[in-house]
Amino acid sequence: MHTEEKLNMTMLCDFYELTMGNGYFQAGYQDRITYFDVFFRDVPDRGGFAICAGLDQLIDYIENLHFDEADIAYLRSKGIFSEDFLAYLRDFRFTGDIWAIPEGTPIFPREPVVTVRAPAIEAQLIETFTLLTINHQSLIATKANRIVRAAQGRTVLEFGSRRAQGTDGAISGARAAYIGGCKGTACTISDQLYGVPAGGTMAHSWVQMFDSQYEAFKTYCQIYPTNATLLVDTYSVLKSGVPDAIRAFNEVLKPLGIKKCGIRLDSGDMAYLTREARKMLDEAGWPECQISASNSLDEYIIRDLIQQGAQIDLFGVGERMITASSQPVFGGVYKLAAVEDADGNILPKIKVSENVDKITNPHFKKVYRIFDKTTGKAEADYITVYDETVDESQPLELFDPRATWKRKTYTNFTARPLQVPVFQGGRLVYRQPALQEIQKYCAEQVETLWDEVKRFENPHVFYVDLSQKLWDIKQELLRKSR
Amino acid sequence: MHTEEKLNMTMLCDFYELTMGNGYFQAGYQDRITYFDVFFRDVPDRGGFAICAGLDQLIDYIENLHFDEADIAYLRSKGIFSEDFLAYLRDFRFTGDIWAIPEGTPIFPREPVVTVRAPAIEAQLIETFTLLTINHQSLIATKANRIVRAAQGRTVLEFGSRRAQGTDGAISGARAAYIGGCKGTACTISDQLYGVPAGGTMAHSWVQMFDSQYEAFKTYCQIYPTNATLLVDTYSVLKSGVPDAIRAFNEVLKPLGIKKCGIRLDSGDMAYLTREARKMLDEAGWPECQISASNSLDEYIIRDLIQQGAQIDLFGVGERMITASSQPVFGGVYKLAAVEDADGNILPKIKVSENVDKITNPHFKKVYRIFDKTTGKAEADYITVYDETVDESQPLELFDPRATWKRKTYTNFTARPLQVPVFQGGRLVYRQPALQEIQKYCAEQVETLWDEVKRFENPHVFYVDLSQKLWDIKQELLRKSR
Repeated sequence: MHTEEKLNMTMLCDFYELTMGNGYFQAGYQDRITYFDVFFRDVPDRGGFAICAGLDQLIDYIENLHFDEADIAYLRSKGIFSEDFLAYLRDFRFTGDIWAIPEGTPIFPREPVVTVRAPAIEAQLIETFTLLTINHQSLIATKANRIVRAAQGRTVLEFGSRRAQGTDGAISGARAAYIGGCKGTACTISDQLYGVPAGGTMAHSWVQMFDSQYEAFKTYCQIYPTNATLLVDTYSVLKSGVPDAIRAFNEVLKPLGIKKCGIRLDSGDMAYLTREARKMLDEAGWPECQISASNSLDEYIIRDLIQQGAQIDLFGVGERMITASSQPVFGGVYKLAAVEDADGNILPKIKVSENVDKITNPHFKKVYRIFDKTTGKAEADYITVYDETVDESQPLELFDPRATWKRKTYTNFTARPLQVPVFQGGRLVYRQPALQEIQKYCAEQVETLWDEVKRFENPHVFYVDLSQKLWDIKQELLRKSR
Repeated sequence: MHTEEKLNMTMLCDFYELTMGNGYFQAGYQDRITYFDVFFRDVPDRGGFAICAGLDQLIDYIENLHFDEADIAYLRSKGIFSEDFLAYLRDFRFTGDIWAIPEGTPIFPREPVVTVRAPAIEAQLIETFTLLTINHQSLIATKANRIVRAAQGRTVLEFGSRRAQGTDGAISGARAAYIGGCKGTACTISDQLYGVPAGGTMAHSWVQMFDSQYEAFKTYCQIYPTNATLLVDTYSVLKSGVPDAIRAFNEVLKPLGIKKCGIRLDSGDMAYLTREARKMLDEAGWPECQISASNSLDEYIIRDLIQQGAQIDLFGVGERMITASSQPVFGGVYKLAAVEDADGNILPKIKVSENVDKITNPHFKKVYRIFDKTTGKAEADYITVYDETVDESQPLELFDPRATWKRKTYTNFTARPLQVPVFQGGRLVYRQPALQEIQKYCAEQVETLWDEVKRFENPHVFYVDLSQKLWDIKQELLRKSR
């Protein structure tokens, strides 16, 4: 696996991006500057916040964006694209600007996570991939963060490759799960490509391959004395699994002075079995032996197991995390927010809907997170027009955009712009942090949220408010649209 | 995008495949011949059958299976693999045999979908990717087939790339959806790579980019007179969307003598709006104008819309198909079924579980589908030991393996072996049909199922029975395991 072998994903776009692109080209709109926002409307699993991820793959994609001759030939074969447009695609590069909220940041509905400013064809063409990568990785990072929080400091590992939705579901999914707080993965290639620590020891087939379970365990301990986690549920956990493991530890590890080892359970009642296994291991003199569990886990089961006194040090979570199976879609959308006229004036655009929640926030915008200086806690997000600034020395009055009489004034706050410039004039201007830094940043930022926002059920709805100026522009556009 | 750029996915394996591989190597088990089965236990969405898919990507993977120097260097850096083993991996190729049920075949719980016969290390190493591709594509093909059946002959298109779980979720997902019966996709690269017909016309942003909706529609009709499907819900479907579309059709298409065109709705009440839109189009002289709908559709909504008289010719289905959101996991597993001793005798292996449904079917097996000669309908699947044959000239008595007094005798039947040889001695021996052929085969095979098996709710449970010989061997192994 060479990293330079990365596939060119330019053609991973909805076909209508190309028909529209050709259309803009024919209509003379190809130089028209447009602004698009990526935002989402609902937090998965009715949670209080999401974790944003996927920017790294968006950067790779934008940097590699180009049409090969084979792509041009394929498009020509469709018989609907003009030769002028195909010639334009041959030299196609992304020349616009992109701002994004860094990976690992808690994000909330209706705020711009990614903002694209680019000529219409470019902005349109990148829609599909941009949504795909942000939606996918934010989905998994958000789910992983829920599961990691449920584990209350115990280790959570990502074990889901075999049930992932395709190769990238496994590979990028393990990356996103790590951002959300998993300590590692079973997916080897995610370690090689992204540095997500990969590990693993044995499957049931290892145990079945030997004449006896004891022999299988002993052989494994001999080969991996410092990394011996034995799968103890192939036959009976308490009758033979744990006893055979203890025997192998005693015979192989004890003479070497090794105290660290582990057992793993992949079936049965985890609360009962792990409590009994813990007693047996402690009584046999293996108090440092860690117990891992890995059977259809998610945040709810982990929470219940801990409440029931299960003795589990490490959770291996598979299909329910790698597919976010309880709600496997992150509904990010990509909506036109503004266009520039020939003189460079920014004209805000709105998408009206009968459904009030689906009306977009128009204009080129900025989003600030308001932190209380004393507690360090995040209090609200504040969306403004691009040219507004926040004076931290003055009180800031925010209001609920859907119930404007609900107002709250903040003093003693800091206002941190959430988006950072990623591309400017087609050039990458953002230094992507190392994955470990992103994980650490994510944990720190989740800490800035009040516990009320972090509840699994009925969390407090975090405020995402509009500035008076932006609210006025939105109302004006809504009036005009009637 | 060059197809020869395909990524080498050898390292997309659970890390424990490598620790076990090294372990087998150290223990002198590397030449031990093993048999593994891929099978699943539950049909997604409580359906009566699944559609098997993903073999094409498995074939690519097996043919490309090798470790690059970069892979070896990465593995060495982990500090736990012996140099002997790394040298072995440097020359690693798949040398075994693989049998598989062809893509597009209806499959049922507990029967071997893929069977691998190979030296232990090889068979183990391919576990993760084999499960990943079969699980993912079977999941999507099964879901797509449900949705296509709900549409009762109307066209279904796959529109979900932006909500797919990663790039391959979109690309292979569109392929699997096509096998399940979708007529095409919005995903351009799936057309280029696999020949899934891609199409699309416009998004809301196209309409918003112009000074008026009418101008947007007219321009589109001028550029694409033979492919003009206009999105009519940016403002109001009935007040302006359909009227503006009719005006554009009249002004641009009518003088050209073009009668084929379309409108698409992406929001609102589809039953009411499409009935009204149909009337308006018919009255305006556009009876051939097709109506497409594409808002959070699945098999249940499509069935209800049709029952309510919605006038929809074409369904564009997004996130609920590309993620199989109602049940986003296909639970295929990979279990040891047998090993060979030094003399080549096949020793059946069983995995016992407290949960009776989780006990595996041991041994190297064959699976036959029994068809009634008169009706052509599939009656049961019949799993035998590898060396059994079925004599179609004699009555065949099958029994329920979990209630052996339930017996049924078939006469006048054909018994078709379901698995075909794919690799023999590491060499590809299977000619994979063209994707269009697979789609056609799938539709034909689904036709062989009784309607009772095809119900969405409480379908009849299709019989999957064991031969007497296989059943006896299984009972003997179960007795020995106590």
